[in-house]
Formats: sequence, structure tokens, C-alpha cells
Amino acid sequence: MAVSSPGLEISFADFAGMFSKPATARSDPPTNCIGYAARDSTGVLSPFTFDRRPVGPKDVRIQIAHVGICHSDLHSAKNEWGSSLYPLVPGHEIVGIVTEVGSEVTSFKPGDRAGVGCMVDSCGACDMCKAPRCEEQFCSKCVLTFNSLMPDGTLTQGGYSSHIVVTEKFVLRLPENLPLEVTAPLLCAGITVYSPMKHFGLDKPGMKLGVVGLGGLGHMAVKIAKGMGLHVTVISTSESKKEEALNVLKADEFLVSKDEAAVKAAFGSLHGIIDTVSAQHDLAPLVGLLQVDGKLVLVGVPDKPLQLPNAAIVFKRATVGGSLIGGIRQTQEMLDFCGQHGIGASIEKIPIDYVNTAYERMLRSDVRYRFVIDIQGSLINGGQ
Amino acid sequence: MAVSSPGLEISFADFAGMFSKPATARSDPPTNCIGYAARDSTGVLSPFTFDRRPVGPKDVRIQIAHVGICHSDLHSAKNEWGSSLYPLVPGHEIVGIVTEVGSEVTSFKPGDRAGVGCMVDSCGACDMCKAPRCEEQFCSKCVLTFNSLMPDGTLTQGGYSSHIVVTEKFVLRLPENLPLEVTAPLLCAGITVYSPMKHFGLDKPGMKLGVVGLGGLGHMAVKIAKGMGLHVTVISTSESKKEEALNVLKADEFLVSKDEAAVKAAFGSLHGIIDTVSAQHDLAPLVGLLQVDGKLVLVGVPDKPLQLPNAAIVFKRATVGGSLIGGIRQTQEMLDFCGQHGIGASIEKIPIDYVNTAYERMLRSDVRYRFVIDIQGSLINGGQ
Repeated sequence: MAVSSPGLEISFADFAGMFSKPATARSDPPTNCIGYAARDSTGVLSPFTFDRRPVGPKDVRIQIAHVGICHSDLHSAKNEWGSSLYPLVPGHEIVGIVTEVGSEVTSFKPGDRAGVGCMVDSCGACDMCKAPRCEEQFCSKCVLTFNSLMPDGTLTQGGYSSHIVVTEKFVLRLPENLPLEVTAPLLCAGITVYSPMKHFGLDKPGMKLGVVGLGGLGHMAVKIAKGMGLHVTVISTSESKKEEALNVLKADEFLVSKDEAAVKAAFGSLHGIIDTVSAQHDLAPLVGLLQVDGKLVLVGVPDKPLQLPNAAIVFKRATVGGSLIGGIRQTQEMLDFCGQHGIGASIEKIPIDYVNTAYERMLRSDVRYRFVIDIQGSLINGGQ
Repeated sequence: MAVSSPGLEISFADFAGMFSKPATARSDPPTNCIGYAARDSTGVLSPFTFDRRPVGPKDVRIQIAHVGICHSDLHSAKNEWGSSLYPLVPGHEIVGIVTEVGSEVTSFKPGDRAGVGCMVDSCGACDMCKAPRCEEQFCSKCVLTFNSLMPDGTLTQGGYSSHIVVTEKFVLRLPENLPLEVTAPLLCAGITVYSPMKHFGLDKPGMKLGVVGLGGLGHMAVKIAKGMGLHVTVISTSESKKEEALNVLKADEFLVSKDEAAVKAAFGSLHGIIDTVSAQHDLAPLVGLLQVDGKLVLVGVPDKPLQLPNAAIVFKRATVGGSLIGGIRQTQEMLDFCGQHGIGASIEKIPIDYVNTAYERMLRSDVRYRFVIDIQGSLINGGQ
């Protein structure tokens, strides 16, 4: 386990050599892929072998180097949303190297860097899938990267595993100038906060944006917003993250949401707020911070309804909206943007056998800011 | 008291004759204007004489013909918002005939029809007042038509009165083809529902719009949306208004919000909803009716927070927004639109001495759909 060094880079030669032998005999299915799976609602993850499909004409096979840990991995592992199918291999912030492509694949070749986010398939024919929308996350047949059923009934398994086979359309190109490990969290945390900034028009240089909650999503929101040239205020319940927000993440301002005088002084100052908090919290002071026509966008989902401050919404013509990851086209746009601006996640890299401890620490918000599992360095060498 | 007849028209000759003599001696101030005022938080209205300012260079003097009764008149009369200054003359849906204009006025002349809505002044210099916004309702110095202080400290008094003097910029031109009495409610109810349709892009022919609550605001929303060519679904808690919604107001569909099967069948079908309800109500079925990127717009202000269905908001990228009347430029646009499409309010015309009874009936929603006070026919003749 180590905090990532921006200078750390993985060469394909090192990486490919590591996986040059199949982990288990291919003649004895289902064992062509190794991973870590939850077996029941305890959510405890342990080694698991399973089959990935062979590479079809439109498929890309990616040897996984790193995978980020998203809070939804934990929700699914513990069946907190009531829809988990076990064994369940989490992980949808997947980065690695292409090792095989199908005969019809044109955008990738073996040796390329490649990423997979939250989705691996959709119908391709509905208004959400087709241009001009290209927002597959809203397709009613969207197939998620894990714990979801493919059209043929196969259960998808995520990126806490040695490789993945995904149709080309859902494979992302990764920036060449960023370490793979800090790129992984862009595939979910990054697009989750980038998309609402673009969709709700909160992306113009000089605009004033608030970011509520400084975790995996929030720290990416600060970095991406600064990359866009926004004036960023981090809004937190305590002073504890002030120094890091201002000095490390380079936010412009820090506001303690329980400091009534400070909130009052900032009343009506923000064009928008990205609210990453998934616990119950008070929206009234947040709406108070908005300008006329200001936009408060929720990207977390508290398990009970939040209280909507009606009058403030009406008198400012404000909106409270939600946002759900982003489409593949926009995810690629975000990755390119992050490459251009040198934006990666701030991570703590862990071996895969640390994942259960990492989940416990994540529940205590004891991570700055995203755990990333070192698949290439730990899954085969010591992870099973 | 009578339900308005679309054919009824007031001629200026009839009207001007009615007011040819001053109501009281001008030499004995403060008595140049007569009206009905609330004196305390009982909200009971009774005759009241007071002074309007003389016509200044930029002013227009309007002899009031009719004034609509808005629910906010009642809130203010009873001090339900805690800010009432007595005596208080309500009324901000004012229509009448110009009787005098200042030397610098260019848009109106004596004999013209004219209207006044919710505002009578603003700073004129801020970003909200100036083009391109022209949204004076959001100016921090906006002066409301009644119970508000002018820059010189004068308390404004509303349209339950014989005349009003307003600076030209806040005077609206009225369609020549609509009876004045059905035009009055456009000045508040009309713009309150027209503005969010335009602002939130819910104004394209063929779009599917829901309207929640079929009262003064809701019935105007149906008429205006039909004028725009929208497909309109009235959403109500009971079947009681179904026939009228479909056959009289010409809505396309009627949905009972407590009919779970019907709501489920309509899931994801609407581009937007104008929610006019100011009582507590459940937003979850309404958000359920929205398409991806659907917009639920509140124009009523329930006195306690509403429950925000977080997950549905996020998974549909939906928004819950508010909207507050509209600027003067857009109010004129709305009046012109209503003139072009022959859209007036459905009203019950009452003499002014019926106003206290009308308030009681309004609390029981016993009006289809807006009370309009016949100032010209009752204030001088029998109202005091």
C-alpha cells in the first residue's frame, strides 16, 4: 500500500510479462479469470475464479492493471440495494492494457492503454444510445459492469479481477501522460462530477462553483473544476479538511456549512453546487448560497428523502437536480480533458488482499481520496 | 357576481363616464383614491380612502376597471407571511384605462387599455433589471404592487382601488381582443405559469406537460400550454375535475395522482410538470412521471419543506426547480401571446363588497377559477 507517486509509470513490457502465463489451466473452466468476490451480504471479499467470454469480433480484452474502489462496490457487496447476485466481483474503475482485439475492432490494438467504467453494454438503438444523445447510462437496457445481466443472461463481473472482455464501444482510451493508477478513478468518480458541470452549464471559466463533501467524488470535482478555470468553494461540515482543500487541492475558498455567519456572508454567491454527500444533510444553506438561477446538483443518493427548501427554490428560480455518471462519449471527453490538464485522482494504492480492510476504512471516510487496487502487483503474486 | 361571458366587452366610453367625477374632493387629502383595505390580521377588508401620488413625468395613471384576486392577496391581508403593513390594499392583477400620462411617457395615452402586475418599480441598474435579463422580479430593490416600500418610503397599495399611478416601465399593454375582466388574472396567474414554460424550455409544440392542481394558476397553465401546442395532462388528487379539464379546458389527458396503476402506466412520459399546489404533497409520483432530463417546476410555496425523491432525481437527471412570476418584458410577451391565441382566464366576476365572502370561498377552492372584482361596476356605485 502506498500513496501514488505522480512519477510512477507502468511499462507495457513489465506488465505483459507478469501475465504471460495463464493463471490457471484453461482446459478446466470456469477458471480463465481470477478475481475477488463477495459471496453473501457480509460483503467479505475472497479469491474467486470464473470464466470471461472469449474475444468476439467486436470485443477488446484488457489485462487489468488497477481498479479503483467506489462506494457503490461496497453497497453491492453487502447487498445494501437489495439486488446483489452472488458471487459478486465488484469494480468499475478499470484500467489496463489491451491484450487481444476482435476482427472488427478498429480503435484499439494490443499494447494500448484502455479503460472500462460503469457500463459494458446497452441496446444501441434507442434515443438515449444514439446520437445526438449518446447517453447510454439512461438506456433501459444498459448493462452495468458488474452485478448486471447481459442480453444472453450472463452475469457481469467487475474489475477486481485479472482481465475483462468488453465490446469496443464501451472501452475508453486513456491519456498517455497520466499514471494508470491515478486514471482509474476517473472512470466513475471523474465522470460523475464532470458530467453535471457540462450538462448544467457549470463549466465556464470564472463561474463560482461549490463542492460539498471532500471524498472520492468531491476531490475530483475540485480538480476538474479548477481545470475548467472555475472559482471553487469547498463546503464542509468542519474545518478539518480546510488546509488540504486550499493548499493541496487548490480550491479557492473553504466554507464550513455549520458556520451561520460565514454561510450568510456567502449568501447568493454561487452559480452552482456539486453535492457529493450520500448521507442525510440540510439543503437549505446550500440553496441559500446559490445565485438567481443557481443549480444544486446531487450526485450522491441519501437513503431517505432530503428536505426541499421550497420558498428559496421559487424565489431564486433555483433548481435541485441529479446527475448519473455520463455517457461513453462524454466519458472519453472527460478523460481527454484530464489528460490535457494533467488531472488524476489522489489515491492510496493497496494490494487486493487489503480490500476488506479498505472497505472498513472507507466507511469511516479514512482515505484521501480513493483506494485503488494494484491488480497487476498483487492479484497473482499474492492475492489468492 | 357572474361567470364571465367571452362576448362581454367594456367600452371606454361607458367606463370613462363612470369615473368622470372625482370620487371624493381632491382638496381634502388623503382621499384621492378609494379602495378596500385590511386593517389587521383578521384580513377583513373594508372601505378605505388614501392618497396616490400625482402623475410625474414618467408616470401613467390608470382608472381601474377590474382586479383579480390572487391567493397571495389573502396571505398578505391576514399577515400569514409576517410582513404585512396595515392598512393594506391588496390586488396585483390590475386592468383599466389610462386617464393621464406624464410628459415623458411615450407608450401610453389617455384612453388606452393598460395593466399592472405584481411589481411597480425596481432599481433599473442591476444585472437583473437591465437587458439582456430584464427580470425585475429578481432585483433586490424590486417594489411590489402592494405592501412594499417605494424608494421614498411610501407604502404601495394595490388594485382593490379606484386608480393607480405607476411608472411607465411597469405598465403593460393589454390585448384589444380580450375582455378586460378575463385579462386581469393574466397579470399574475398567467405570467406565473407562462414564465417557467419558457424559461425551462417546456414550450415546444408536441412536448408533454403535466399540470398539477387545477385552480387559478393551473387552469391558466392548461390554456397557455394548449396555446403553445403542448400535449397537456392534468394531474389531480381526485376525479372531480376530470370532465371540466378535458371538455372545457381542453386538456389532452387527466391523471389521478393517487391511482397507482394509472401513474405507473404513465411513468417516464412527461417532459415537464408545472406544479401549482401550495399545500403539502408527494413529489415522488410526479418525478416518476418525468422522462430523463424532465423538469418539475414549483410555482406554489408550501409552508413546510417538501420531500425530495433523491434517487429518482439522480437516476433520471431530473430537476426540481422553482419559478417566480416573470419580468416585465416577458409579461408583455405573455399578454401578446394570449391576445394572439384568444386566451383569457375563466373567472367569476364579483362586486367589491363580496370580497370577504370570496376569500372564504377561495380557501375552500370554491371558485372556477379566479375571482375578479368588478371595480368599475361596484366600488363607487355600492362599494363604500
